[in-house]
Amino acid sequence: MTANIQPVILCGGGGTRLWPRSRRAKPKPFLPLLGERTLFQQAIDRVADPALFTAPIVVAGEVHVPLVREQGGKALSIIAEPTGRNTAPAIALAAHRAPEGSVLLICPSDHHIADEAAFRSAAEAAAGLAQQGYLVSFGIEAISPHTGYGYLRRGEELPGGYALEAFVEKPDLETAETFLADGRYSWNGGIFAFGRERFLEELATHRPEMARLCAEAVAGGEGDGQVFRPAEAPFAQIDGDSVDYAVMENTAKAAMVPVSMGWSDIGNWDALREARGGESTGEHELRDCTNVMVDSDGPRVSVVGMEDVIVVVDGDDILVTNARGAQGVGKLEGVSRP
Amino acid sequence: MTANIQPVILCGGGGTRLWPRSRRAKPKPFLPLLGERTLFQQAIDRVADPALFTAPIVVAGEVHVPLVREQGGKALSIIAEPTGRNTAPAIALAAHRAPEGSVLLICPSDHHIADEAAFRSAAEAAAGLAQQGYLVSFGIEAISPHTGYGYLRRGEELPGGYALEAFVEKPDLETAETFLADGRYSWNGGIFAFGRERFLEELATHRPEMARLCAEAVAGGEGDGQVFRPAEAPFAQIDGDSVDYAVMENTAKAAMVPVSMGWSDIGNWDALREARGGESTGEHELRDCTNVMVDSDGPRVSVVGMEDVIVVVDGDDILVTNARGAQGVGKLEGVSRP
Repeated sequence: MTANIQPVILCGGGGTRLWPRSRRAKPKPFLPLLGERTLFQQAIDRVADPALFTAPIVVAGEVHVPLVREQGGKALSIIAEPTGRNTAPAIALAAHRAPEGSVLLICPSDHHIADEAAFRSAAEAAAGLAQQGYLVSFGIEAISPHTGYGYLRRGEELPGGYALEAFVEKPDLETAETFLADGRYSWNGGIFAFGRERFLEELATHRPEMARLCAEAVAGGEGDGQVFRPAEAPFAQIDGDSVDYAVMENTAKAAMVPVSMGWSDIGNWDALREARGGESTGEHELRDCTNVMVDSDGPRVSVVGMEDVIVVVDGDDILVTNARGAQGVGKLEGVSRP
Repeated sequence: MTANIQPVILCGGGGTRLWPRSRRAKPKPFLPLLGERTLFQQAIDRVADPALFTAPIVVAGEVHVPLVREQGGKALSIIAEPTGRNTAPAIALAAHRAPEGSVLLICPSDHHIADEAAFRSAAEAAAGLAQQGYLVSFGIEAISPHTGYGYLRRGEELPGGYALEAFVEKPDLETAETFLADGRYSWNGGIFAFGRERFLEELATHRPEMARLCAEAVAGGEGDGQVFRPAEAPFAQIDGDSVDYAVMENTAKAAMVPVSMGWSDIGNWDALREARGGESTGEHELRDCTNVMVDSDGPRVSVVGMEDVIVVVDGDDILVTNARGAQGVGKLEGVSRP
C-alpha cells in the first residue's frame, strides 16, 4: 500500500560544530558536504518520487529562505519561521499547512543517508503505522556505543515495526555498551512519521499553550504563493521545545520502525571524515600520514608524519583538529565571529 | 689580547626543511625566524663590535646578493658565488680577499645563538689558538644525544681550548648517548677560526686542485667596490666539498674551543619551535592543546584538542606537522615548486 506521505523538511540548527565550513550565514544543510548536492538538496531528492511522496513543505528560518529558494527551486513550498523555537513548533506550523488526512514524514536536512532504498522502505512502513494512529520514530540501527545520541527501546512487534517502549536520553559509554549488547535499542535519528491530525491532537494534549500559539500564528500568517510567514507575535511567545520532549515521549501510541540505511548526523568533523571515507578534497599532499583528512577551499595543505588529523581551510580560517578535538570545535571563540 | 678577527659570513643552503616559510628565492638566513632581525642580520650583529672584529666578508650566491644588500646595508663587503660549491671553496674565496695576517672566523648565517657574550668569549679564545697556528672548531656543548650533528672529541688541554682528537660523523642514537655520557664530545656547529695563510696552505696541501681553481677564480674576478665576483669558469670546475672534509679533518693542527651559547641550527620546524619556546605567531586560537605552535602570515589558525602540532601558513601554502614529521618536510613535492 502506497501512502500519501507529506514530507516536512526541517532546516534549523546553527551547525557550529562543522565550523569553519559551516557558518551562521550558511549553515550545514546548505553546504555540499558529501557529494555535489548540499545536504538540504539531498533531503529534497530523497523524497522526490511522486509515487510515494507529495511535494515537500520546508520549514526554515527567515534568514535562510533565500538559500532554500536558490537550492530547492521555485516550486518548493516554504514556511519561514520568524525565529527559532525548536522542532515541535516548526512541525506544528507544517501540520497546519499540510493537507487534511496526510501522513507527515519529518526529515531533518542536516543528516546523511547513504542507502535511499532503505529509507524509502522505512518511510512506507512508518506511514503504514501512522495510518493506524501511531506516532512513529525511525529507529536507526545502532552500530556503535555512541554517547551523543538518544536511544529508542523497542517493545512488542507491530505490522512493519514495533511498539516503542521507551525514549532513552544520551547514555554514558558503559550504558551505551549494554544497549548495543541488548539488541533492542536503536538510535533516535529525529526522523518521525505521524498523521497530521493525530499530531495536532497530541500537541494540544501535552503542550496546549504551544498548540494554541502555533494555531494563532498560522491563522494570522500571510503567504505569497511560495513562502508562508506565520504571524510573528504569537510565534515569538512560544516556549520552544523539541518534538521528542513535547510529543513523542508523551504519547501512548508510540511506535518505531527499525532501519539500517547508512545514516550519519555528521555531528562533527570526525563524523564527516568517516562519512567521506577519509577522502581529502582540495589541493593537498599527505606524506607519511595515517587517517588524515584535508578539506581546503583554496590553499594547498601539506601534512607530514601525522596520524588522526583533520585540516579545514575556509576563506581566512584554518581549523586543525582530530577525532577527540572535533567535539570541541563549536566552543571556539572564532565560531561566534561573523 | 684582542685579536684582529675577520668574520666570514656564509649564506649558503637552500633551507628546504623550513618550507613553506623558507623558499628557494628567500631561504632561511634571510627570514626573521627568531625576533625581528633575520638570522643573517643577527649573524652580522654578532660580529659588529669593532674592538674585536673587522668588517665582515659575506659570501653568498649571486641570486641572493640583492637580499644581502637589502638586509646588510651598503657598507658590507660581499663575494658573489656564481654557483654553490659548498663551504671549502666559499671560505677560500674569502681568505684570498681578506687582509694578510688576519684570523678568519667562519660563521654560518642560518644558526641561532642566544648567548652572544659566550660567543664572543669563544671567538677570542679561538682566535688566540688560531694565532698559534691551530685550525679551531667551536665545540658546541652537547645537551642531547642528537643524531643530526657531527661530533668533536677533545684531547689534551691547550691555552683557551683543547687539541681536537677526532671529527666524528653523525652517530646513531646509541652511540650519541655514549658520547653524551663520555663528556669529551661536543657538537660540530660549523663555526671555525684559523689564520688566513694557514688555511690557504692546508687547502693547497689537502685539496690542491680546489686551491688552484679558487686562486684562479679570484685572480680573474672583478669587483665593483661592494661586490666581488670571482671568475665563473674556474669556479664552476671546482669539485665542491665542505671545509670539514677538505681541511679540518685532515690538518695535523686541529683544536677546539668548548662553548655553551644557546646554539641551535634551527634544522627543522621542531627545532624552531623549541628555539621559540613554543610561542605562536600570527592570528591563532588554541583550545585544549599541548605543545602546539602556529606560525601564520595571515589566516587565523584554530587548533582544537591536539598535542605536538606545528602549523605554518605562508601565502597559499599550509604545512601541518609534528616533531617526528618535521624531519621529512624537505621531502615534500611542494618544496620543489617555485
